[in-house]
Amino acid sequence: MFSSIKRFLIGRPLKSDALGEQKLNKTKALAILSSDALSSVAYGPEQILIVLITVSAAAFWYSIPIAVGVLILLTALILSYRQIIFAYPHGGGAYIVSKTNLGINPGLIAGGSLLVDYILTVAVSVSAGTDAITSAFPGLHDYNVVIAIIFVIFLTLLNLRGVTESAAVLAYPVYLFVLALFILIGVGIYNIATGEVQPNLHTPVGTPIAGISLFILLRAFASGSSALTGIEAISNAIPNFKDPAPNNAAKTLTAMGILLALLFSGIVYLAYYYGITPLAEVTVVSQIAEETFGRNAMYFFIQGTTALILILAANTGYSAFPLLAVNLANDKFIPRMFTFRGDRLGYSNGIISLGISSILLIIAFKGHTEQLIPLYAVGVFIPFTLSQTGMMVKWIREKPKGWVTKLIINSTGALISFVVTIVFFLTKFAQVWSVLVFLPIIIYIFHRIRKHYDAVGDQLRITTCEPSVPIEGNVIVVPVSGITHVVENSLNYAKSLNPERIIAVYVAFERGDEKKFEEKWKQWQPDIRLVTLHSHYRSIIQPLTKFVDTVEHKASESNYRVTVLIPQFIPKKGWHNFLHNQSSLLIRAFLLYRRNVVVTTVPYHLKK
Amino acid sequence: MFSSIKRFLIGRPLKSDALGEQKLNKTKALAILSSDALSSVAYGPEQILIVLITVSAAAFWYSIPIAVGVLILLTALILSYRQIIFAYPHGGGAYIVSKTNLGINPGLIAGGSLLVDYILTVAVSVSAGTDAITSAFPGLHDYNVVIAIIFVIFLTLLNLRGVTESAAVLAYPVYLFVLALFILIGVGIYNIATGEVQPNLHTPVGTPIAGISLFILLRAFASGSSALTGIEAISNAIPNFKDPAPNNAAKTLTAMGILLALLFSGIVYLAYYYGITPLAEVTVVSQIAEETFGRNAMYFFIQGTTALILILAANTGYSAFPLLAVNLANDKFIPRMFTFRGDRLGYSNGIISLGISSILLIIAFKGHTEQLIPLYAVGVFIPFTLSQTGMMVKWIREKPKGWVTKLIINSTGALISFVVTIVFFLTKFAQVWSVLVFLPIIIYIFHRIRKHYDAVGDQLRITTCEPSVPIEGNVIVVPVSGITHVVENSLNYAKSLNPERIIAVYVAFERGDEKKFEEKWKQWQPDIRLVTLHSHYRSIIQPLTKFVDTVEHKASESNYRVTVLIPQFIPKKGWHNFLHNQSSLLIRAFLLYRRNVVVTTVPYHLKK
Repeated sequence: MFSSIKRFLIGRPLKSDALGEQKLNKTKALAILSSDALSSVAYGPEQILIVLITVSAAAFWYSIPIAVGVLILLTALILSYRQIIFAYPHGGGAYIVSKTNLGINPGLIAGGSLLVDYILTVAVSVSAGTDAITSAFPGLHDYNVVIAIIFVIFLTLLNLRGVTESAAVLAYPVYLFVLALFILIGVGIYNIATGEVQPNLHTPVGTPIAGISLFILLRAFASGSSALTGIEAISNAIPNFKDPAPNNAAKTLTAMGILLALLFSGIVYLAYYYGITPLAEVTVVSQIAEETFGRNAMYFFIQGTTALILILAANTGYSAFPLLAVNLANDKFIPRMFTFRGDRLGYSNGIISLGISSILLIIAFKGHTEQLIPLYAVGVFIPFTLSQTGMMVKWIREKPKGWVTKLIINSTGALISFVVTIVFFLTKFAQVWSVLVFLPIIIYIFHRIRKHYDAVGDQLRITTCEPSVPIEGNVIVVPVSGITHVVENSLNYAKSLNPERIIAVYVAFERGDEKKFEEKWKQWQPDIRLVTLHSHYRSIIQPLTKFVDTVEHKASESNYRVTVLIPQFIPKKGWHNFLHNQSSLLIRAFLLYRRNVVVTTVPYHLKK
Repeated sequence: MFSSIKRFLIGRPLKSDALGEQKLNKTKALAILSSDALSSVAYGPEQILIVLITVSAAAFWYSIPIAVGVLILLTALILSYRQIIFAYPHGGGAYIVSKTNLGINPGLIAGGSLLVDYILTVAVSVSAGTDAITSAFPGLHDYNVVIAIIFVIFLTLLNLRGVTESAAVLAYPVYLFVLALFILIGVGIYNIATGEVQPNLHTPVGTPIAGISLFILLRAFASGSSALTGIEAISNAIPNFKDPAPNNAAKTLTAMGILLALLFSGIVYLAYYYGITPLAEVTVVSQIAEETFGRNAMYFFIQGTTALILILAANTGYSAFPLLAVNLANDKFIPRMFTFRGDRLGYSNGIISLGISSILLIIAFKGHTEQLIPLYAVGVFIPFTLSQTGMMVKWIREKPKGWVTKLIINSTGALISFVVTIVFFLTKFAQVWSVLVFLPIIIYIFHRIRKHYDAVGDQLRITTCEPSVPIEGNVIVVPVSGITHVVENSLNYAKSLNPERIIAVYVAFERGDEKKFEEKWKQWQPDIRLVTLHSHYRSIIQPLTKFVDTVEHKASESNYRVTVLIPQFIPKKGWHNFLHNQSSLLIRAFLLYRRNVVVTTVPYHLKK
């Protein structure tokens, strides 16, 4: 039943050699990998204005030079990530680049930040999208958390179905959003050009403003840069591309950069020209759309696709997180299970962990995950800085043809990213300090896990040539609960193994019970030795474990191995298990984990 | 660590022979077994007035004759239960009496109703007590559910510690409550006798009232009878009494009956004389206390002990539920685990189940369990009726000395209880209909469980003399994951058992992997046959199960038994388990539950 529900939700299992069919072409890849970056256009420009309004509305003209700064950073990042894609065609992005060029710990800082960041991406974007929906239907407002969780579950299932199927579903809304914004910007600029918009709604660029400071400008720039989160996703996801993967990934990245640049500058320009002030209840994009179209169908089309893309931005996390986890797991810094492909060839453990973690975050913050946005931005710019510094080191070390240009590109990117990171720490310390606590903890855990795997590997490896202790004979202990077919079955099995010794053990709870049982036993199985133990505390485990210890101690002297044979009857229906004492499971767990004995379960299948 | 927390919460384990020390004397028994019945005084009289007010305040004089009716019912029930105690000195109350005299199904109806009823008792009384507390401290009102759950957990732990310890803690509040009410009633009557209370606050008894009907009177009577819930508890709990248990129980029951009668009539009389009208916010007892003392310390003493006894009323459920469950479990109608005594000799599974069920009820009803009160009353009067009918049958059948008097007592009790039950169904059908749905379901489940236990017993019993299939030899299958010490260890063990055949199985996920592994194997273990399987769907279970099926099929032809030997390494620390694939557990579960093979786990304890 479980497997048919699973099949219904995520589809039939795929054979391993169907992996090629699960690869993405450029159009689909652009849709599912750029939704995070493109969706930031919906809030990035607003973030700049929110900082500037703290001075005055006249300061809004600064949004133009700040946007230019963001575009320069964008260009540097896109060029830089193109270089990363070609240099590391197997994917891995910031983690691989930092690890290879800067060393293990910088790699882990980058990897750890991104891992957490993708969880934040999912929680933050789904919450934001849900907010957009419940703003339109206020009756749903009380169910924000539930709705957000349903979206996360939906995205998780979609991704478990496989990357191509999710791309097929998600491509439409992404392109519709891009189309909607292009129409908005086009009509807006046409209106401005034809003079339909009054030119006196904004202060001219260059107007001197009292009270503006470098600190505020940097802060506005850092806030605007949060629109650049998500652009590293493509470099992590190269293995998902159709061959030639690096070329396709690089083209997709460039396309995404151009789209992002156009949309971002368009929105900033319109917001500036229309003189739009950020409001708590109405987003900047919504205001621009209303100014341009009024509240008609076009307005709702823009609002609808915006809400949708905010939710789908989460999907970028789903594409990148599992692949990053594979890289970390291959290096043994996180559990190996992240490297297994699921029924549909996706890295299902990564997908499921991401879904569960973000649901927990949404519940913990009761859906108000906007408090996490600065944290999330820092979590992106730390790996940006590290990966580009890594590339700088690479060029200086390897000095390939044209390395100076490459070095300049990466140095620019590294420098600006570094400045943005520092600005975040300086201007929003109250919201981002926790990075300084959690990152070291995460990295400590990475190292502990790695240490454990290494230790296990050392112990299992045969090369140590330590000869294993020979087994001279076997002692079989059979705990019995009565004179039944189940016990008979186990004893027969024990006899068939021809051990040196078979000992049946009976644990009595009440005085007098022992004697009676011993007599019955003598008649039934006279040739098998019975030991009866009395349990003062009505526990089977305690006296049994003690007895097994004694037997084990004696046996080990003559290199005998002790096997505990546990008779277990298996009921026909699952619910019947509730009606029976599961002591056999408990006994097994106790003996196996704490003692050096072999535990054998002899099933007795009930027929009705 | 778990066991030290447990020890701290419920105390060190007790030896089975310490059971005698856990018995109750009369004073303690009265406290913990009558809290439910006595606490009903706090709301029973109010229930009568709430029905009468639907006619007019002048109709309040009817509360006097109605109270007389309740007292007659009380007397009949007390006398009747005294007879039950002596007739069935091993306890069991309504379930045992109905089962023995009326048959299995009436017994199960009584037992099932009471079982559910004790859960309702706990949920309802704890919620009511919590309401009383949060009314006094409105700041806590939002935390009603949490507070109620904490109280349930507290009572559960107290009862897990053992019945004498809980009696020691609970005796004070119960006796304080009785004391408080006696002072209240005494001072009230003194005030009336000395003429300090105006005699014109009430209509005289016998005043004709327009609009009064038999229906309303019956309804008021039924509502007042809800004060009698809980009096059956003592008859269930006879095994908890010190010897001579039946005598002590009967004396305790009589004492409880007298206390209940005095308190009930006192409160009804004062309420009538003071002309008190039931209000939504202030209870009748609170109004009487305020009239009598004003808002002084005495008033708060009465309010405080009332709140406390409402919560402690739940404890009656904790005393009676586990013992009733033992009776049902001994008759195999509910899981056998309810007959096991825990560390502190209480029936801990019953106590824990009761706690969990009532917490679930409190959560499901968000603490508003007052909606459950009618259900709860019906759940008491159904077993009342059945047990007394049972006693009628017993007297008619056995005709002991003085049986006519006994018959008259039980017949009166049976008749009135039956009338009350019917009145509940007629007047509050909307709230009690669910009994008619749930009881049949519960009884169906009882029968299903019994049927399963009987079937298992039949299959296990050796008397069937069906000769067991002889085991001619053993085939051992060892799934291997690589060339490691763990595998070596398992192979050595397999060899030491001298089976007919050992087969190592390797599941390969990738093409080419098989060949490589086979070559390495040939060098390492040339004398053990290796079978490699290819897994298209990256699952170990599927190909392995299929292979084991084939082996099993062949082996069964020559009466060979198949053993699957699963190598498992046991990490040193618990958290390390997260880092390893628990496929061995999965393989074990699959093979054990679905196939007829023996599963042996060979542990390899990691040293670091």
